[in-house]
This record gives sequence, structure tokens and C-alpha cells, in this order.
Amino acid sequence: MSLPPEFALIARHFRPLAGEGALDLADDAAVLDIPAGRRLVIAADAMVEGVHYLPDDPPDSVGKKLLRVNLSDLAAMGATPLGYLMTTTFARGIADDWIAGFVRGLAEDQRAFGLSVLGGDTAATPGPTCLSLTILGTIAPGAVLTRAGVQVGDEIWVSGTIGDGALGLRVLQGGLPADEAGHLARRYRLPEPRLALGQAIAGLAHAGMDVSDGLVQDLGHLCRAGGCGAEIEAALAPLSPPARALVDSDPALLPVVLTGGDDYELLFSAAPGDAAAVLARAAAAGTPVTRIGRFVPGAPEVSVRGPDGAPLALSRRGWSHF
Amino acid sequence: MSLPPEFALIARHFRPLAGEGALDLADDAAVLDIPAGRRLVIAADAMVEGVHYLPDDPPDSVGKKLLRVNLSDLAAMGATPLGYLMTTTFARGIADDWIAGFVRGLAEDQRAFGLSVLGGDTAATPGPTCLSLTILGTIAPGAVLTRAGVQVGDEIWVSGTIGDGALGLRVLQGGLPADEAGHLARRYRLPEPRLALGQAIAGLAHAGMDVSDGLVQDLGHLCRAGGCGAEIEAALAPLSPPARALVDSDPALLPVVLTGGDDYELLFSAAPGDAAAVLARAAAAGTPVTRIGRFVPGAPEVSVRGPDGAPLALSRRGWSHF
Repeated sequence: MSLPPEFALIARHFRPLAGEGALDLADDAAVLDIPAGRRLVIAADAMVEGVHYLPDDPPDSVGKKLLRVNLSDLAAMGATPLGYLMTTTFARGIADDWIAGFVRGLAEDQRAFGLSVLGGDTAATPGPTCLSLTILGTIAPGAVLTRAGVQVGDEIWVSGTIGDGALGLRVLQGGLPADEAGHLARRYRLPEPRLALGQAIAGLAHAGMDVSDGLVQDLGHLCRAGGCGAEIEAALAPLSPPARALVDSDPALLPVVLTGGDDYELLFSAAPGDAAAVLARAAAAGTPVTRIGRFVPGAPEVSVRGPDGAPLALSRRGWSHF
Repeated sequence: MSLPPEFALIARHFRPLAGEGALDLADDAAVLDIPAGRRLVIAADAMVEGVHYLPDDPPDSVGKKLLRVNLSDLAAMGATPLGYLMTTTFARGIADDWIAGFVRGLAEDQRAFGLSVLGGDTAATPGPTCLSLTILGTIAPGAVLTRAGVQVGDEIWVSGTIGDGALGLRVLQGGLPADEAGHLARRYRLPEPRLALGQAIAGLAHAGMDVSDGLVQDLGHLCRAGGCGAEIEAALAPLSPPARALVDSDPALLPVVLTGGDDYELLFSAAPGDAAAVLARAAAAGTPVTRIGRFVPGAPEVSVRGPDGAPLALSRRGWSHF
């Protein structure tokens, strides 16, 4: 009796990704042990074709992005990756080549980030492809970085550069000129989960999260968690050279940078007296970090000072699916 | 600053489902401890509107079915539920009432099965609603029930009744008359995860799995895991009274019962000498079980003897999404 097509697909494409505990993806569930003295950290994020990625994005980059947006959630907690489960509901008639490319991207990033697949499910849908991934990590008790520790007076830090993903999406959609090196499009397609930084600042930073839906909106989440307001300066937001060039040529793009989403950088708070320690730990983790403002008493509002010193008006604060 | 619509939806509908470790669904990930001396068991299954459930199924039953098909995977391993993560990509324009009903069903089953939500993600899709759930459970080392332990000579057991779900789907689609009590439709919409049975037979049964894609096809998975064949008798397959009445009136429905899927019963193997112990443990778990055949030497084929004693020809063996 040969395998039915669904199981042949799993055997051909997904079984080579399976790691320890996955029972070769041939059982009803995975069974694994959390190392003694570690806590389990777990999160799930979905991606829909045409919503979270573009139909003509290379399939290997879609696989990598699916894994990386989830790894970014582990990074935001200060956790170390352990494994993942994945449900793939593929658009009917999807090319086998597309699935092979998607799996190739996953395989490359499994090696890069040191984890493997534990289980999942595959089905077909008459709608666009819908991908869901659950990521597992571990952390030492006491080293967990949450959103709740924000304190008034804390300085606000962000890693890497902001706005590349949102500008990259516009480049790929034809609304903006591409930079020569393709940096912006690459940043949209391939976020960089800040795992080393998250682990490095856990225990020093008071609170942290990853920026996925826009800097201003996500900073609002930290304000609500801390019961305070935030003030940031647009001029301090770290921009990559191609993002800087676009914003310089069209200042109307500044709000896109600050609210556009798809950054997957870490946003965190620390006491002003710990600034030197933050910089030292970030340098050790090989990740640039920048101070962009501070938490202030008051309502959970984010105020943004524009480059001219006046409050910057933002018509939207970030991405919402509804 | 008020919550953006996506986060207002999460706060209104999903936060009340959150349990210990979920950090109130306000962080990037959940953090929890696996009890000392227990192993983590984890699985994920997706459901797509129009594929795994009908667009006019009551939304509370859709929530329950999503949880139960995953609980069935825990049951198949002999595990105890711990919690779950869920990604919901709702069809654009879905009614808030639908989401409220879906969450009400989840809430009722959380209480019934003793678990709570740990995290997840919500987005919108231009296609049909696509739901993915990752279930976590725990198990004592040594009590894990896998597919790999099948031995030639083992008897084949199945819990509950077979074919109700497949017949119930046909009833709901108008292809078969409904039974007066609505049993078949209810079995399609509300599978019964056999958690108590799975825990009871772990350590006694040699191998086990849940029947989700059709009895014959799923038995084929056990054959491949054990490197042997299987012989079952159609006349021994346990049927509910309404299923029996339909098959008696139209013998062409017998293959539907044996290959139709959506059973979520446990299929397991045990040594013939352990039959009395199997029956005792199943009775203690409050779950009927029935012997339907045995594993035999040879290729991993399932042969089905029909009610007349002759081999039953099956044009399909079970459900495949591709």
C-alpha cells in the first residue's frame, strides 16, 4: 500500500526537517524533555499569502520569514530556541517546487538558529496559503524579559534600524524606487531575530518586546503595560542609509518609518544609569542599539517629537488586521 | 490612546480564556514550567472553513472541534492536557458574533478538559477562515503510547463507534436522512477525545493512534510503523444504532464508514493475552472498545473481510488533502 498523497508530501518535504523528539513526524504528537532548571517559552504567529508576504516572494524567504518572526518573539523574552511545530494550509494547486523552496528556506534557518521541527499538520485551502508556526524556547528562571517591568524615567532603546521593512514592502509593490543593494526589500523578506541581544539584556533591561506592528503602536503596548506615557524623538530613530536617503528626499515617509511594521527589532527599557551597561552588552551581542526617548508619567500615550522640535502628527500608529 | 482594533478584539474575546503562564496574552510569549518528572507532549492541527468544518456549523461547535481534534492527538499518546496556543486567521468581514460563539465553545471545553490558552495570534484573510491550534500535554516517562510498538499477532482494537462523523457530514450536506436524535451530525461536529482511555491503556497497549482520516488508511499507518500487515472484519466494526440502520438500508455505505474520517476514536494494538486487561481498563475509563482484527506478517497492507466473508473492495482508503 503506497502512501496517500498528503503523507507522501509530508514524507518527501517535511520529514527531513524533523529533529529529536519529533518521532520522525510519524506519530500523533512529539514527546520531549525540557532541560532541568529551564522554563518553557512558547509563542505562535501566522502568515497569510498576500497579507504577511507577497505572492511572488521567493518561497525560501517565506519559510525563513515564518521561522524568524517567531524567533523574534523568543528574542523579545530573552529565550533560547528549542524547536517548532508548523501547520501549513497550502492554496490548492500550489506548485511542488514552491513547497520545496519553502522547506529549503526552513532547513537553512534551522541550521542557522539551532532548532528543528517537532510536528504539525498539512492541508489544502481554496483560499490563499495560510501558514502557522508555534515556536518553543527555554530560559533560566529569573532571566525572563517581559513587557510589565517598564518604569517611569526608563530610557527607551531600540535595536538595529527602523522602517526598512515597511519601506521595503513599498519598494516591492512598486511604490518606491529600490536601493541599489536591495537592502530594503531584503529587510522586508528576511527579518533578523535579535536572539543574542535579547539574551544579553535579560536581567538588565526592565521590559522588552519585539517591534512587529510599527514602532509607535508597539511602544503604546509597553506604555499600557507600565501604566505611563512615552516620549520619543523622530530624529533619534535609527535609519539605515537607504531609509535615510528616502526620508531625506520625501519627509512624508517619516511616519511610514515610525508606524509601518515588519521591523522585528527589539524595543526595551532600562534605567538611565544602566546605559553604559546596555551598550556594552549589546556590543558583546554584536547588535547596535539606540536610545530614542524615555517613559514619562501620565496616560499611556506615545508622543513623537518631529525633526523640527514640534509634535509629529501621525494619522495611524501601526498595523491592525481588523 | 485606545487599543487598535486587532488588540481590542484579542482583549475582548481571547484574554478571558488565558490561564497560568499566558502572561495575560499581553506579552510576546508564554512562560511556563513542565512539572518535575513529566515529559512535554505537543502536537498541532489546523482546520479550514469549508474543508474541516461547514460554513454553517454553529461557531461554538467549531471552537470545540478545533480543541478536541487536538486533544485527540494527546489522547493517542496517553498524555494529560496542559494548555494550548491558537492562531486564528478570520475571513474578512466575519461577524463579531461568530467570534464570540467560537470563543464560548472554547471556554466551555477549557473547563470540561482542564486546560487554558497560553498564547497565539490573530489576523484576517481574504480567503476562508483558517484556524490552527497547538496543544500541550504532559506524560510520565515510560507511559508514552506511540505507533511504533505494533507486533505481529497483536489484536487490533478501536474505541467507541466508527463512521458516525463521515455519515454525519453527509447528513449535514443533505446526502443522507438525519437520524431523529441528531446523533450523526453531532458526532461530525463534536468529536470525543478519548483522553481517559489513552491514559488507561498506556503501558499495556503496544501501539496506538487516533483515527482521523479513515479507519483503513490510519490502520495502514500502524502497519507501516510495525512493518506488517493487518486483517480486519467489517462485521466487527462497532457502529452506532443510526449508523447501523443506514448501512443496513444501503450496504454501499459500509466503505464510507470504514474510510470516511472524522472519527477521532483510538485505534490500538495489544497482545491477545492482554484482552481481558484491555477490557477492564477501558471499562474503568468509561470507554467501550472493540476488537476488529489482528496484525499479520507481510507487506504493510490492510485487508478487510466483508460481511459475506469475501474481501471487501475499497475504491479509496481514507481522506487526503492533496
